[in-house]
Amino acid sequence: MNTTPIHLVAGLLLLWTTVANPAVAREAGVIDVRELGAKPDGSDTTPSVRAALEAVRKGEGSKITFGPGRYDFYPDRAFEEYLFVSNNDEGLKRIAFPLKEMDGLEIDGGGATFVFHGYTVPFLISGSSQVKLRNFSVDFSRPFHSEGKVLAITPQHVDLEFTEHYPFEIRNGVLVFTNGKKAKTKATTVTSGEVVYPYGSLLAFDPIKQETAFMAKDRYQVGAGIAAHPIGPNRIRLRIPNISARVGEILVFSPKNRDVPGVIVTDSSGVRLTDITLHHCGGMGVIAQRSADLFYTRLKVTPPSGGHRIISTTADATHFVNCRGRIEMVDCLFEQQKDDPTNVHGLYAKITHIFAPNRFEVSMIHPQQAGVDFIGAGTRLELNDGPSLTEEGFANVKSVERLNKHRTIVEIEGTLPESVTVGDSVADADANTAEVLIRNCVMRGNRARGLLLGSRGKIVIEGNTFHTPGAAILFEGDSRFWFEQAGVRDVVIRGNTFDNCNYGVWGTGTIQVGSGIAEEFRSTSRYNRNIRIENNLFRSFGRVPLLSLYSVDGLTFTGNRLEKTTDYPLPDGQESKLFDVTDSDDVKIEEPSTVSEEAAVGG
Amino acid sequence: MNTTPIHLVAGLLLLWTTVANPAVAREAGVIDVRELGAKPDGSDTTPSVRAALEAVRKGEGSKITFGPGRYDFYPDRAFEEYLFVSNNDEGLKRIAFPLKEMDGLEIDGGGATFVFHGYTVPFLISGSSQVKLRNFSVDFSRPFHSEGKVLAITPQHVDLEFTEHYPFEIRNGVLVFTNGKKAKTKATTVTSGEVVYPYGSLLAFDPIKQETAFMAKDRYQVGAGIAAHPIGPNRIRLRIPNISARVGEILVFSPKNRDVPGVIVTDSSGVRLTDITLHHCGGMGVIAQRSADLFYTRLKVTPPSGGHRIISTTADATHFVNCRGRIEMVDCLFEQQKDDPTNVHGLYAKITHIFAPNRFEVSMIHPQQAGVDFIGAGTRLELNDGPSLTEEGFANVKSVERLNKHRTIVEIEGTLPESVTVGDSVADADANTAEVLIRNCVMRGNRARGLLLGSRGKIVIEGNTFHTPGAAILFEGDSRFWFEQAGVRDVVIRGNTFDNCNYGVWGTGTIQVGSGIAEEFRSTSRYNRNIRIENNLFRSFGRVPLLSLYSVDGLTFTGNRLEKTTDYPLPDGQESKLFDVTDSDDVKIEEPSTVSEEAAVGG
Repeated sequence: MNTTPIHLVAGLLLLWTTVANPAVAREAGVIDVRELGAKPDGSDTTPSVRAALEAVRKGEGSKITFGPGRYDFYPDRAFEEYLFVSNNDEGLKRIAFPLKEMDGLEIDGGGATFVFHGYTVPFLISGSSQVKLRNFSVDFSRPFHSEGKVLAITPQHVDLEFTEHYPFEIRNGVLVFTNGKKAKTKATTVTSGEVVYPYGSLLAFDPIKQETAFMAKDRYQVGAGIAAHPIGPNRIRLRIPNISARVGEILVFSPKNRDVPGVIVTDSSGVRLTDITLHHCGGMGVIAQRSADLFYTRLKVTPPSGGHRIISTTADATHFVNCRGRIEMVDCLFEQQKDDPTNVHGLYAKITHIFAPNRFEVSMIHPQQAGVDFIGAGTRLELNDGPSLTEEGFANVKSVERLNKHRTIVEIEGTLPESVTVGDSVADADANTAEVLIRNCVMRGNRARGLLLGSRGKIVIEGNTFHTPGAAILFEGDSRFWFEQAGVRDVVIRGNTFDNCNYGVWGTGTIQVGSGIAEEFRSTSRYNRNIRIENNLFRSFGRVPLLSLYSVDGLTFTGNRLEKTTDYPLPDGQESKLFDVTDSDDVKIEEPSTVSEEAAVGG
Repeated sequence: MNTTPIHLVAGLLLLWTTVANPAVAREAGVIDVRELGAKPDGSDTTPSVRAALEAVRKGEGSKITFGPGRYDFYPDRAFEEYLFVSNNDEGLKRIAFPLKEMDGLEIDGGGATFVFHGYTVPFLISGSSQVKLRNFSVDFSRPFHSEGKVLAITPQHVDLEFTEHYPFEIRNGVLVFTNGKKAKTKATTVTSGEVVYPYGSLLAFDPIKQETAFMAKDRYQVGAGIAAHPIGPNRIRLRIPNISARVGEILVFSPKNRDVPGVIVTDSSGVRLTDITLHHCGGMGVIAQRSADLFYTRLKVTPPSGGHRIISTTADATHFVNCRGRIEMVDCLFEQQKDDPTNVHGLYAKITHIFAPNRFEVSMIHPQQAGVDFIGAGTRLELNDGPSLTEEGFANVKSVERLNKHRTIVEIEGTLPESVTVGDSVADADANTAEVLIRNCVMRGNRARGLLLGSRGKIVIEGNTFHTPGAAILFEGDSRFWFEQAGVRDVVIRGNTFDNCNYGVWGTGTIQVGSGIAEEFRSTSRYNRNIRIENNLFRSFGRVPLLSLYSVDGLTFTGNRLEKTTDYPLPDGQESKLFDVTDSDDVKIEEPSTVSEEAAVGG
């Protein structure tokens, strides 16, 4: 009895039903989404993508194409799956491009801009092989973070101004970021269904330099909201003391969770991302887990042009967890994302109970590793002493009983070595073994560090430019806090430019070991091995050493050049020493040659 | 290299491994959890329950027993499943007693008190038949809601005092309820893993009368927090204007979500709950969906003794969605829960697109119905006009394609009637057909209404006592807001006492129709049918009519008695008329006989 007649609705939506029409594939094997109803007119492209993937599944093609223009994607009709994504937040997610069990699929955006609305994950590549994505950019209609310009600051409060890109309300005296739409239905005792953008931490950025503000500190634990009151149109006074920011800077409200990564790669091999620009997503840009052979070429993580947004993705640009085979990132740009350019590591699970010498319980401790299972029958476990990060042997898994996303009971062949106790940890000894090549990439302006290197495979880092506020290269790994397995075996760092790194609070050296080895074990543990640092240019304002390392077995530092700069002040007026290397064996450090600014530019 | 030797850990936990030991079943078919390691000493009972259920699965018994004492249940090692629970909030839940695919299982608590910690669902009965639970009580170590005593109130703020039962912090100027434990790890950019208790609405209770405060109003939309500051030990000033409360009352902070119902029954039949007391849970007490033959005897929903808590469960005591067969609730007590004693209804999905006369999209609109699928191949759909709630015919489902938890594409045999348009709704015509008997129950002090009756089966309500702040009996149903299918066919209401109902804001009559029929269709729609109201006692202070009805076909009101009271004031000094019945057919109303207070007590 409403006014829309059936035939009109049916007509408007007829294209939805042309799923299996082979006529749409004009070029052999090519499925053009525009023939399936996709239009660059603001309408929802999700049903056309669903239809295209259905056609691929039916063998009607293996390449999906778009063309130039803006295509919009809404969560309403998107595929849905509960996903555990390492170092991001788990959840029942809507996914615009669910690429599951695909073999040899290629998606060519043809220069399109893909704009996602609300909590919609752009891409999931799961259980697939040889998937290629190319030639498009990704943005969101409303970013998951918010940016406020600092108008005034005292030890008690901060005054901020927001543009229309960051709709907000002050509700019951608390700052709330919204999508600018009022709730459609009346308020009741039940879930509202309203779309909001909770925040979890604050950090100031410098809008001129387009980077984290000099020595700015994160403010955590604001996830329950911050008291505020309005002081003018789009202006608020945030009642929070001791914020590390200055007038004119941009205070960035990071999303509380990493719910919406840009591209999730899981249990897949042979993934090629080429000429893709991620302007934004609500989590990591590209996160790959339990996968192999990942090739990213001219992948750019960068805010959109126009100057209205300083942040690109709200967490790491890329991230690799328990990956094998080969990882390559070439000619990439990673800037102004809200965490590191990359981190290549494995996973540790903690031994939380031992029932018998062949039967024990392990737990995933880090909340963002819960559910990222890596132990099954046949897994070869590396056994690891918690505080010292030393190997205690290996064990083959006979069977597992998964209690829940946190805990699994493991039965092994044979018995545990006697040294293994509750509190020690296990890793998959054959994962996190990828050979890594990172070449000709630019990394700058983001929060925190540059490359976090933890793969056990051979690693080559060459020809890159780093301008990171923390360590440019960090060797991490610990089984007491982050539970990320690392411990490199063979690393070459050559021909890179380290350009005024460490202008922020996230590091003690340009190249640094940060592995979580308890002080008392550093003299004996040799967690990272065989690191060669050759023919790099270090432009340094002298706040921290070039090298800050411990517990390394095998280090050479040769043929490097140093250019001293005054581009940033020394906070305590004191220049640091160049090298801080302790508790290591087989160390060979050659003093860097000193170059002037002109010579460096010429070289 | 830690200090705990393997053999000690193994010894302490050996009982976990005795899962399959037939010796534990001393009495034939009886599995005593105490023989599997369960102890009333504060330790986690979950592993023993897991072992007992494993023994049942292996055929070693069909009855699990406890004994007197307090048994604790922690989420750490509990079973986990993503659950869509109608009228509660979906999520990946930990479940202490996961009773899945069980046939004929009985659990006898032997008088035990079960205390659950954190976000742990006590019971899930799923895909099971003939399950009996008896003889235990349920409580939580920290309730999901919080209660503050009103010390002072102005139009701008409320001053509150909390006891140690409701730990809280003021964090960045915002009130946050916690479990009283500090986070174990340092703050970072990632999820904290901290356990907090977000709140979503406020309502004042009268601590003397142990009921909602006279005419108190809910305050919604506080889910993003409320600004506050400390004014003394355990005292805060809440910066929120116009709260409906008085000094000395208890302001109840309801949990933001209904994440932790007490007992979830889904896709099961033959469930008997006997002599069970639910002191608390974070959602509905017992929620049954897509199930049949549910018998609750002496089920009590009531706060614990001791006077430190005024609220029992944080939502409805019981609730039945798309249930069939028979529902019986006899000799039950439902008091001080944060919503209705029960609601028996079906589900409507809205038609959101019509592709072709035999193919259309339906959507679950209510956020707490998302994922509660009820349409599959073979389902007989009732087609329903949205604004008038009139039947437009039936259709048999040929196939469905589920897009996500909200949307499903349905293909039917034949075609839709021409009157069906986008905006109309569908229900499962053969669900929500249970015969209902509610006898000798007491319902009082809770938020909102009494019985919400919507089953299409025969309903008998007899011998109950109602002291509810809204309508004692409400005939609901709508397909525009709550999307709950109702529309009774045969109801007898006899021998009940309606004792001073409607002392709150949730009703316009003691027995009321609230069905969502648009005004212009009330004269023609006859959504509720054949209601007989006989031989009841109405004790009324006259604020609202005894009957407030519309769009009913068939109503008799005979042999009832009325006692006028002065137990509550008349807010506007005006006594209401006794009957407000409009737009109805076949109505027979006999004036009630008037009784004095003494006569009523004697009768």
